[in-house]
Amino acid sequence: MTTGQTPIRGYTATKDQLQTRLRRIEGQVRGIDRMVEDDRYCIDILTQISAVQAALDKVALGLLDGHVRHCVAEGAEEGKGDAMSTELMAAVGRLMRRG
Amino acid sequence: MTTGQTPIRGYTATKDQLQTRLRRIEGQVRGIDRMVEDDRYCIDILTQISAVQAALDKVALGLLDGHVRHCVAEGAEEGKGDAMSTELMAAVGRLMRRG
Amino acid sequence: MTTGQTPIRGYTATKDQLQTRLRRIEGQVRGIDRMVEDDRYCIDILTQISAVQAALDKVALGLLDGHVRHCVAEGAEEGKGDAMSTELMAAVGRLMRRG
Amino acid sequence: MTTGQTPIRGYTATKDQLQTRLRRIEGQVRGIDRMVEDDRYCIDILTQISAVQAALDKVALGLLDGHVRHCVAEGAEEGKGDAMSTELMAAVGRLMRRG
Repeated sequence: MTTGQTPIRGYTATKDQLQTRLRRIEGQVRGIDRMVEDDRYCIDILTQISAVQAALDKVALGLLDGHVRHCVAEGAEEGKGDAMSTELMAAVGRLMRRG
Repeated sequence: MTTGQTPIRGYTATKDQLQTRLRRIEGQVRGIDRMVEDDRYCIDILTQISAVQAALDKVALGLLDGHVRHCVAEGAEEGKGDAMSTELMAAVGRLMRRG
Repeated sequence: MTTGQTPIRGYTATKDQLQTRLRRIEGQVRGIDRMVEDDRYCIDILTQISAVQAALDKVALGLLDGHVRHCVAEGAEEGKGDAMSTELMAAVGRLMRRG
Repeated sequence: MTTGQTPIRGYTATKDQLQTRLRRIEGQVRGIDRMVEDDRYCIDILTQISAVQAALDKVALGLLDGHVRHCVAEGAEEGKGDAMSTELMAAVGRLMRRG
């Protein structure tokens, strides 16, 4: 992306696994679209939506975990702990209320 | 899908709109994958995940609404009200706990 | 409550059980207050808050279930199905986003 | 609580405010019990349950915030960052799935 240095993120070490998960979720959403196309039963479609949401929650928790381990810990050492915690809580709040 | 009659679902009247929404959500998930590819900041990725969760919640509520209006009401007339309510509550419970 | 007739609700048949649950939840919240009073560990307090949320979700699902079984089915027969579904979905949406 | 030193928690500085909130929530739950006692409309009771859940989410986010600011930052310095992050993510996961 950048011509210079690639930034190190909390998910850098598990980037491949994360992208595999996201592509699987993309495929699950495509599958839901196909269920609608095929006039499948409402409740079965809702079950698949819940499965996608559970998968997205897992991805989100993994990202949060990496972020806390790498970024927040580092930020604390650099005196940016308060700002990072405020930002982190806003993200957790959005995940809890979903958007 | 079926050789004979296409089943009428709670979402039949708004099927196009529903599929448009699902394709947009599919695109949003693809966008999240690209953010990971580009090593974007964890918190920005989490914000996009929350946006997808909110969009999926809207789709789910729309499906539930159609299901209650068309299927549950009809089911009640046919004496299947209790079974349909049990099934509906299981779906709502999965959506509340997400999976 | 009313001098005349007591209204029949979706929860009327299980009112005692519902009130027992609500009093237990009230006690759980009081227990959380005591944990704070005693300077207990943050994570242990959060675990108890999650337990209360799960208990409230169960109460909410029970109320929804009774409402769909008794009120919505009846409403559908009286031609109030659409209005009741709109109201129901607003309630489910609030539960999914929690407030 | 302890005969010796009172432990410092992430919420110690805002303990009074936290306890005030918890007592208000306790009162809200008691109010829901009264609504049931008075045979109030299902949907109105559900609205109050959502309000309690939103209030509990706010308390939980406040506790998480204090925990990250005080405990996790400190833990990182003492080399306990990984264990604390694992514990924190388990708590966030329980809050997201509610129990």
